[in-house]
Amino acid sequence: MSGPAASEERQPELPRFLSKVEAVAMEKELIEDYRFGRQQLAEMCGYACAVAVTKVFPVAALSRKQRTVLVVCGPEQNGAIGLVCARHLRVFEYEPTIFYPKRSPDSLSKDFTTQCEKMDIPFLSYLPTEVQLINDAYSLVIDAILGPGAEPGEAKEPCTSILATLKLVKIPIVSLDIPSGWDVEMGNEDGISPEVLVSLAAPKKCAGRFSGKYHFVAGRFVPDDVQKKFHLNLPGYPGTECVVAL
Amino acid sequence: MSGPAASEERQPELPRFLSKVEAVAMEKELIEDYRFGRQQLAEMCGYACAVAVTKVFPVAALSRKQRTVLVVCGPEQNGAIGLVCARHLRVFEYEPTIFYPKRSPDSLSKDFTTQCEKMDIPFLSYLPTEVQLINDAYSLVIDAILGPGAEPGEAKEPCTSILATLKLVKIPIVSLDIPSGWDVEMGNEDGISPEVLVSLAAPKKCAGRFSGKYHFVAGRFVPDDVQKKFHLNLPGYPGTECVVAL
Repeated sequence: MSGPAASEERQPELPRFLSKVEAVAMEKELIEDYRFGRQQLAEMCGYACAVAVTKVFPVAALSRKQRTVLVVCGPEQNGAIGLVCARHLRVFEYEPTIFYPKRSPDSLSKDFTTQCEKMDIPFLSYLPTEVQLINDAYSLVIDAILGPGAEPGEAKEPCTSILATLKLVKIPIVSLDIPSGWDVEMGNEDGISPEVLVSLAAPKKCAGRFSGKYHFVAGRFVPDDVQKKFHLNLPGYPGTECVVAL
Repeated sequence: MSGPAASEERQPELPRFLSKVEAVAMEKELIEDYRFGRQQLAEMCGYACAVAVTKVFPVAALSRKQRTVLVVCGPEQNGAIGLVCARHLRVFEYEPTIFYPKRSPDSLSKDFTTQCEKMDIPFLSYLPTEVQLINDAYSLVIDAILGPGAEPGEAKEPCTSILATLKLVKIPIVSLDIPSGWDVEMGNEDGISPEVLVSLAAPKKCAGRFSGKYHFVAGRFVPDDVQKKFHLNLPGYPGTECVVAL
């Protein structure tokens, strides 16, 4: 009778990718039960995304011109995290430029925007449709457009046009949480193909279809009990690192 | 006419420690002009304090029993940062215990308290007056009791009793921002003598009287323009580090 349990114990469990329902339940638990604040979560996640960028594109290896990063922020929570990420990239001596076409009226996003503006991070008034201009001007794109809460079928302008442009760029894309425009479970075979994915809190099911080179999880802040409850089985975060590579 | 300027340029300027008026002005600028949120600032500072602890007392060098840390939190902002620090110490695999005798009614502090409670960090109901019990039970004390906003002459119970006890402990004390009970400019020669000081945002004048072994500044989030305006002249933060040793 102990057969199955014993065999389960023998092999180390693989990291688990959350369904949409599980991802929503986990966020609810963090916010409602643990009382994590939205500002606090966005700050931790945006910081961790910037740290993940430094792992793949270390600033010391880049010339001044190669440090240019285009951070594309959507109107919701994913965009707010993108703004925090841009600020930390600036602190880490990258040269971020933000494209944030549809600004959230939320005070959280407004405050993050002010922080970036006051730190002299440039904001683009439009995204060039000529993809070569983007390839030439920037070394990478941070995709903070749509998160797991967005329904891909319902993506509206300006997001659809931006995603059409990003599908054509040749410079690497770093996607925050999920690649924008992907279904949180099914992915999107016609969508963008990021080189780097930074899962926030925990990987979502669509990460199984990610074929880029680097997949990080930024979820060290998730309490042990919550990680266990959702059977995340993530590798340990080394030292004081806020991200871990899968 | 260019004499003084030229000679100023020749010698690298030393880090500057802020007066009380300057520290208040800088915090006002961060909050009112840059729109940094109090939750965001507390999260960044508490995280950086926990990272500073790992620099002096690396967890890998400690046995399970040596990882015990007593985090003493006061009723105001310094205590809120202590709660965040305790949470990150837990994540970094220390064994924090919190003493938080006068709880703030502020929602910020309440939420940080809930995060710690739900992560099973124990809260002490009283601090042993027998100092040997503290020396035996813990490896270090985090002093998050009073910050630069407190008037040392006006310190009330339970803070005065706690500080009298901490003056006698033999285990190292890590003070957040300023040693509790010190005047932000003049220090306090009869006060506690921390081994580690973690200045938050920028060092305050009393840090000139600090005679402990390790002084860190946790202020990488302070925008360049603000650092320049207050002539902080801090050494560069290495890599993605959020603290730098002075």
